[in-house]
Amino acid sequence: MFSGCQFSLYPMTDRYVDTILSAVEAMRVHHDRLRIETDDLSTTLIGPPDVLFAAMRDGFVSAAAGGLHVVAAATVSRGCPGEPDDPICGRLDAPPATPGGAGAVEARAAPRRFATPAPVGVATSAQISLYPLGSAAYMDDIVACIAFLKKAVVFETPKHFASKLHGDAAAVFAAAERAFLDFSGPDRHVVLSALFSANSPSRRR
Amino acid sequence: MFSGCQFSLYPMTDRYVDTILSAVEAMRVHHDRLRIETDDLSTTLIGPPDVLFAAMRDGFVSAAAGGLHVVAAATVSRGCPGEPDDPICGRLDAPPATPGGAGAVEARAAPRRFATPAPVGVATSAQISLYPLGSAAYMDDIVACIAFLKKAVVFETPKHFASKLHGDAAAVFAAAERAFLDFSGPDRHVVLSALFSANSPSRRR
Repeated sequence: MFSGCQFSLYPMTDRYVDTILSAVEAMRVHHDRLRIETDDLSTTLIGPPDVLFAAMRDGFVSAAAGGLHVVAAATVSRGCPGEPDDPICGRLDAPPATPGGAGAVEARAAPRRFATPAPVGVATSAQISLYPLGSAAYMDDIVACIAFLKKAVVFETPKHFASKLHGDAAAVFAAAERAFLDFSGPDRHVVLSALFSANSPSRRR
Repeated sequence: MFSGCQFSLYPMTDRYVDTILSAVEAMRVHHDRLRIETDDLSTTLIGPPDVLFAAMRDGFVSAAAGGLHVVAAATVSRGCPGEPDDPICGRLDAPPATPGGAGAVEARAAPRRFATPAPVGVATSAQISLYPLGSAAYMDDIVACIAFLKKAVVFETPKHFASKLHGDAAAVFAAAERAFLDFSGPDRHVVLSALFSANSPSRRR
């Protein structure tokens, strides 16, 4: 299954180039499991979802750990029919519960396979939106995903077009990864749009 | 039809707070046609699509005109069935041509209603992705949209998961607005994800 993301890092500082280059260095530990292309707008990462989220988290945490206001923007995609398959992406693991019906939605909203990871010490706000494509029943997947997020320790508030999270970066990225993987079948085309932010002065007010 | 966006501005400078506040001031001319809410992650704008895109463009151009490296991230949505309607949003204007079939795709890819606007003098790169939801034939809409973009003067290159544009900010935002409006029916749930960037040092290399 083809999976990948467009990932961008925005450090709100005059020294943004150095901050970005350091973050890229922090992501390098994952490089042997990713195909990487960079241009002036974003870095394309192609690889399995767990590696994508680990690399994004490590880049973001590296940039934000010193206290700078940093935002990461990500568009994560799997199963896009317009993309050729790539062996580096591997197969998606066990499919989620069968969709359909209110009972199934409730069952799928249980926090399956979501163990809160060890904290990395960077308080992170995020907003995420899930787009399951190609199905008239896509709102069932979205409703189940929102129900899952509302039970997660990192849930903060619903917003128009998105769910807002807040917590340690490790838990926030892990919740986003589960949202991306668990609410549409493994053969489906799904996109997750996400913003991650640390050290915003609006937050500190 | 409910329409709105989540819009964020990222000036890569120590003076990012002042830059953002000035940009918000530049967007104020549109305020009587928008409902606006702000938190630490983004500004929610609810209103008709033409006003959403004008407000986003004016905020971005205000922040970037002085030469700072500035990025805007936007998630624009219309027809979301989970949202109550709002009179401020109005009705979507004339529907696009009927979808379906290769001939129809070709016809829809004609640059309808897209007159390149007067330039505002800010060179802008963008990447945009269209997500038409709730339809098995969604790839037809996406293919038609990409065909339209490839004929547009601002088209730069395809990317994984996105199309990349470059040109004057006025033309780039106008192309994004047409992508959002013209490739799925007026009653459809459609999301456009977009990044806009000016003055990137990667671009100048």
